[in-house]
Amino acid sequence: MAGIEILFLGKEDVDALDLDLQDIMDAIELGLKAHGEKEVIMPSKDHLPLDYPEKLFNILKGYVAPIDVAGVKVIGDFHGNYKHNLPSDLALITLYNSETGAPFAIIDGTLITWMRTGAVTAVGAKHLASDNPKVLGHIGARGTAWYNVPMLDKIFDFEEIRVTSRRPESRERFAKAMSQQLGKKITVTETTEAAVRDADIIIDASRLVEHQVLVEDKWVKPGAHIQAYGAILSVEPTIPFSVDKFVVDDWNQCQKSQYGQFAGLIQAGDLRTEHIYGEIGEIVAGLKPGRSSQEERILFWHKGFAISDIMLGHLAYQKAVERGIGTRLPYYQQPQDM
Amino acid sequence: MAGIEILFLGKEDVDALDLDLQDIMDAIELGLKAHGEKEVIMPSKDHLPLDYPEKLFNILKGYVAPIDVAGVKVIGDFHGNYKHNLPSDLALITLYNSETGAPFAIIDGTLITWMRTGAVTAVGAKHLASDNPKVLGHIGARGTAWYNVPMLDKIFDFEEIRVTSRRPESRERFAKAMSQQLGKKITVTETTEAAVRDADIIIDASRLVEHQVLVEDKWVKPGAHIQAYGAILSVEPTIPFSVDKFVVDDWNQCQKSQYGQFAGLIQAGDLRTEHIYGEIGEIVAGLKPGRSSQEERILFWHKGFAISDIMLGHLAYQKAVERGIGTRLPYYQQPQDM
Repeated sequence: MAGIEILFLGKEDVDALDLDLQDIMDAIELGLKAHGEKEVIMPSKDHLPLDYPEKLFNILKGYVAPIDVAGVKVIGDFHGNYKHNLPSDLALITLYNSETGAPFAIIDGTLITWMRTGAVTAVGAKHLASDNPKVLGHIGARGTAWYNVPMLDKIFDFEEIRVTSRRPESRERFAKAMSQQLGKKITVTETTEAAVRDADIIIDASRLVEHQVLVEDKWVKPGAHIQAYGAILSVEPTIPFSVDKFVVDDWNQCQKSQYGQFAGLIQAGDLRTEHIYGEIGEIVAGLKPGRSSQEERILFWHKGFAISDIMLGHLAYQKAVERGIGTRLPYYQQPQDM
Repeated sequence: MAGIEILFLGKEDVDALDLDLQDIMDAIELGLKAHGEKEVIMPSKDHLPLDYPEKLFNILKGYVAPIDVAGVKVIGDFHGNYKHNLPSDLALITLYNSETGAPFAIIDGTLITWMRTGAVTAVGAKHLASDNPKVLGHIGARGTAWYNVPMLDKIFDFEEIRVTSRRPESRERFAKAMSQQLGKKITVTETTEAAVRDADIIIDASRLVEHQVLVEDKWVKPGAHIQAYGAILSVEPTIPFSVDKFVVDDWNQCQKSQYGQFAGLIQAGDLRTEHIYGEIGEIVAGLKPGRSSQEERILFWHKGFAISDIMLGHLAYQKAVERGIGTRLPYYQQPQDM
């Protein structure tokens, strides 16, 4: 056998790929379908809480049969990173082939995490929002927000996009850049109520340090689709029980992984299997209907799973190979069995 | 902040480090002590069974406070790799700093796994063998065998070393090379009985595909220290119950991870917490006595844990930095918080 190489893609390499939004959403949708059809292996993500919630690692791992690739992502959640001018969620994705178990790609996972989260948000809304939604209310103007908004708008072409965030500088910067990117007005609001009340689609991409109600139950109108996926509970805790349908990404992982938006409700025994309508993959795969009326209020909680990281890591790898981007590293120059 | 780099060490780089056996054992002993003193974070290892037992990934992850490093190892167990002239256990170790969560080292983990396993074997025997053991009986002549035997001999300077393995070519090749390395005779035996019967230290490093008794209970003499750590049960199943002390590396992981030498006995409910004397880390840290008489038969089962991989990965990283070995990769050339 010839030597084994690994393709390395740093942050700037991933930037240079300039991945197409539609390609990203297509890859993510395939991954969700594979999950729904049980064509994946995925233990629950793990955590290394060095100093929770300030310093935490998450480790996600899985195998996706339709593309025949295994992968692991290690992603930090380090709240002090802004002091180093770094995102809080630095990540590394490694991909492995299923013939020998050899690694074949090592990829900066920070941007890919934002992209894959945005794509799960958008593909989820595609399957769960009411027909022809006109108003998007978005909380958060950093990280995943950069992908949530353009991907959702690509699907729905909103009449109104409202954005808020904790810091005025962030939301103003985001609105300005996104308005240019989409060629439409982005309305900046001071309060979360002004952003989300009576919106057709509500995305809560907040990153709280402690629980706070950013979305009240009564602001979620009939027919609305709402998603909340921050690590800390940020919506009124009645919402999972008052909505018509509560969809998750992976219920096994939701129960086992001890952090996340609704983890406290699960640990308290309040949120149980009988409250869950289904998993998004089952809906994407057509094994369970999504929305069944225009009046339903549907909540989707995606904790984020390895399948999406593997799908998008693999897409990045393929595009990089096609375009000759990245650094080829000798892993085993001269294979030798001892 | 300046750009972030990652140091990459492929197989040939790790070879070039030519790590010192004593340095390796010292690093491993520190890791075991940290584990005993609960100065680590370590969820159980996970598995991705693509096609068990032919094709399996193991994912190990942890954090070691005394060196302040987090790490993840992905290691395959691919039985067909010999067809590609590759070891069955290709591995990749990634290390992360605890300030920002950024990765700082990516290291081929195959050789390091053999080294760390050999060092746990040797350090375990140092704490659990009888005084002045003269005879080593070793099953297995590939992979970890290359480190078990010289490390044990460095500690004990045996009068007799007996080695056997399934294939005559492997054991002859191993004995020849090891005899040169240690400057002493290595006795090759055809049967496992001839190798291990009445030895002072018995190491069963076999890699079976299905259960087979390679070590019978009655061959383990009073005062003997025995270790067996293959993925498949290879000793007589009475041994865990007939020995005076049964020591493990991490009892939580032994119970949660579904594969390994005695996993079947645990899953059947036969092997329970009351059968376990303690963890090797507790003994190394002096929190629990090791051997208390020259007549005790002591069994040590090390499934292998992330702490050892992190300790040795970090040692390799430090030596590589000192000596300018490896490839420096740009992970974030221009840090940017979005």
